Amino acid sequence: MTKPSEDSIGLVAPQTLHFKEPFTLACGKTLSEHQIAFETYGTLNENRSNAVLICHALSGHHHAAGFHEGDSKPGWWDAYIGPGKAIDTHKFYVVCTNNIGGCHGSTGPTDTNPETQSVWGSDFPPLRVRDWVHSQARVADALGIDQWAAVVGGSLGGMQAMRWALEYPDRLRHCVVIASAMKLTAQNIAFNQTARQAITSDPEFKAGEYLKHNTLPASGLSVARMIGHITYLSDDGMGQKFGRELRSGDFNQGTDELVEFQIESYLRYQGAKFSQAFDANTYILMTRALDYFDLAREYDNDPVKAFEQAQCDFAVIAFDSDWRFAPERSKEIASALLHADKNVFYAEIASPYGHDAFLVPNQPRYEALFASYMNKVASSCD
Amino acid sequence: MTKPSEDSIGLVAPQTLHFKEPFTLACGKTLSEHQIAFETYGTLNENRSNAVLICHALSGHHHAAGFHEGDSKPGWWDAYIGPGKAIDTHKFYVVCTNNIGGCHGSTGPTDTNPETQSVWGSDFPPLRVRDWVHSQARVADALGIDQWAAVVGGSLGGMQAMRWALEYPDRLRHCVVIASAMKLTAQNIAFNQTARQAITSDPEFKAGEYLKHNTLPASGLSVARMIGHITYLSDDGMGQKFGRELRSGDFNQGTDELVEFQIESYLRYQGAKFSQAFDANTYILMTRALDYFDLAREYDNDPVKAFEQAQCDFAVIAFDSDWRFAPERSKEIASALLHADKNVFYAEIASPYGHDAFLVPNQPRYEALFASYMNKVASSCD
Repeated sequence: MTKPSEDSIGLVAPQTLHFKEPFTLACGKTLSEHQIAFETYGTLNENRSNAVLICHALSGHHHAAGFHEGDSKPGWWDAYIGPGKAIDTHKFYVVCTNNIGGCHGSTGPTDTNPETQSVWGSDFPPLRVRDWVHSQARVADALGIDQWAAVVGGSLGGMQAMRWALEYPDRLRHCVVIASAMKLTAQNIAFNQTARQAITSDPEFKAGEYLKHNTLPASGLSVARMIGHITYLSDDGMGQKFGRELRSGDFNQGTDELVEFQIESYLRYQGAKFSQAFDANTYILMTRALDYFDLAREYDNDPVKAFEQAQCDFAVIAFDSDWRFAPERSKEIASALLHADKNVFYAEIASPYGHDAFLVPNQPRYEALFASYMNKVASSCD
Repeated sequence: MTKPSEDSIGLVAPQTLHFKEPFTLACGKTLSEHQIAFETYGTLNENRSNAVLICHALSGHHHAAGFHEGDSKPGWWDAYIGPGKAIDTHKFYVVCTNNIGGCHGSTGPTDTNPETQSVWGSDFPPLRVRDWVHSQARVADALGIDQWAAVVGGSLGGMQAMRWALEYPDRLRHCVVIASAMKLTAQNIAFNQTARQAITSDPEFKAGEYLKHNTLPASGLSVARMIGHITYLSDDGMGQKFGRELRSGDFNQGTDELVEFQIESYLRYQGAKFSQAFDANTYILMTRALDYFDLAREYDNDPVKAFEQAQCDFAVIAFDSDWRFAPERSKEIASALLHADKNVFYAEIASPYGHDAFLVPNQPRYEALFASYMNKVASSCD
C-alpha cells in the first residue's frame, strides 16, 4: 500500500458547499437546493490566478489526491497531483468537486428530495455534462475564483473541461483534455447500454427504488463494472498482466470447473467491490450523460464552430492502447481546435494501459509531457 | 425476408443419430448414450470423397443452409452453402452437426440424464473442443465417411477444424479456418466471464436448475448476448449502421429518458430474442470450451509442433475489422503452419463487419476467395 511520503499532499479532508438558490438543469427541472462535496489542495495565490479545476470521470469523486484520515490508499489522481507532481500543489490551488448526481457527498439519487421528503432514487433528474460545468461555476463563485488557470479532466472529465471552454470562455486560460472525445461512438453507447441493462434487469433494482426496499442491485452493478473494466484496459495490457494463467489447480484435471483464469477472479472481485461502494442510479445517470454528450450538436454539428467559442489554450493527450476513447477521437479534437485557430498541444503517448492509462502512475513520458504543459499553465498565473 | 431461390438448397429437414455406445469426454466423464442432430446438403459421391464437415460457432447449430418447412429465413451459413455458392452443393456432400451440449437437438443440458432420469441442467459435464471433434468422427463413421474433403469452420468452428487436423490427421484433406485463433486472449476470456456472470447472477438461474424450477434466466442471458453482440461487430461498422441516431423523439426535450439510441433498442431486442431461443447452460458450456481451447498446450505450447501432426492443407481467412479474433491471431496460425511445412492459403479480407464478417452475405472478395479455395478442395475429390 502507498503511504504518505514527501511527494504526497498528506492528510486532506473533504468540504461541502450548500447552495440554497434553485439550480435549473439542462433537462428543464430544477433542484431547489443542493450541495457539492469538494476538496482543495495547495494555496490560492493573492491575485487568485492559480486555481486548477479537476473534473472527475464516470466512477470518480472529489477525493483526487492526498489521504483521508485512516486510509492507506490516496485519492484517485494522487500520482499526478501533489508537491512536485504534474499538477504541482506548490504552484497551484487545486479544486476537485464531486459531480451532482454522484454518490460521494454531492446531491444525488441517494439523498432526500426536499420536495417529497423521500429518497430521490430513480426520480433524480437526468443530467448532462453542462449541468456539472454550471455547478462547478457556482463553486468557483463561492471560492472567489473568477478564472481557472486550467480546467483538467480525463475521459468524462475531459468532456467537462471542453464544455467549460464553450460555456464560460473567459473563465479559464487552459483546457487539458485527456483520453476523451467530442462524442461517444455507437460501440461506446452499446457498452454503456449493456451495463445499464445489467443493472436495471437485476430484480433487486426495483425500478431504481432499491433504497426504499432496502435492497441493492449488487449483481447487476457488478456485471456493469466488469463490462466497463474490460473496456478500460487494453487487450495487450490485460494479456501481459493476466495472460491465460489459471488462478489455481490444473486444467488437465478437466473436471474441476472451479478452476478459473486469473482475469476472471480479478474482474469478479473488482465488480463485487464496486457494487458495494457505488450507487446504481448514479451509474445510470453518469453513463447517460456520457452517451448524450455531443460537443458540437448545437453548433450545427461543426466542432470548429463549437471551438470558435473558446478563448483558452488547449492540451489534448491520448494513449495509443486506449480503444474506448481511441487516439483518433483526440486527433479529431486537436484538428478542430487547429481549424478554429486555437493554440493546441497534442500528444499521443505509448502505454500498455488502455483507457486507464490516464490514471496509472509511473508513466515517465506522460508525467513529463503533462508536467511540461502544467508548467506553461503555471507561468500564466504570475 | 430471403425466400428460396434457384441458388438455394430449398427445403431441408434435420436428422438425428442415436449413439448407444458410451462416449467418454475430455473431462473423464462418460455419456452412456447420446444423440446428434445434423443436416446434410448435396450428394455423397460414389467413392465417398466429397464430404465437407461444417463446424458451428458459439450460438450456431446444425441448420446451416436451406429452409425448414414454414421458415422465411434460411440456415445461418446459407450465403456460403448452396448450388454455385462457395461451398457448392453441386460438388460437395455437406454435413453439419449440432454440437454435444447444444440446445438444438443434440444431447445437452436441457435433456434428461438417463442415469438420474432428471434434466441434466448444470450437471451436464464440462466440454472441450475435442469432445465435439470426437463426436463428429462418430457421425462420419455412421455416414460412411472415412475422410472429409474438408473440415470448415468460423470462430469456435475454426477451432474444431484445427483440432480435427491434429486428432484425425488422415481423416481430412483440407482444413478451412475462418476468423479463429489458437487460443483466446485474456480480453476474450474476460468478456466471456462477464457474460457468464450476468447469467449465473440472475436469480432465475437457480444454480443452473432453472428448468426444474420452471424459471428462465432471460435477463442474464440477454445481457450476455448483448455483450457478445458488441464484440462481434466492429466499432466502425456499428457506427455506420447505427451512428448516434436516436430511435425516436427529440433529445433537446431533455427530460424524456425514454428516448434512446437506435443501437440500444437493437441490442436489447437481439438480447431478448436470444434469451428465449437459447439455453443458458449451453451458453456457459460453449463459452467455457472456447476459453479453455489452447491448440498447442499439450505440444509444449509450441504451435509448430502441434501442426506437425497435421497432414492436410490449410486455408486461414481473417477480417481486418475483427477485433474479437483479430487478423493477428490468424497470422499466428498461418505462420505456425508454414514453419511446420504445411501448405497454407492465407487471406486477410477488408470488411466493415467485424467478427460477424464470416457470416455476413454479399462480400464479393470473401466469396471469391472462399469459392476459389473450395474449388481446389473439389478437385481433390475426383
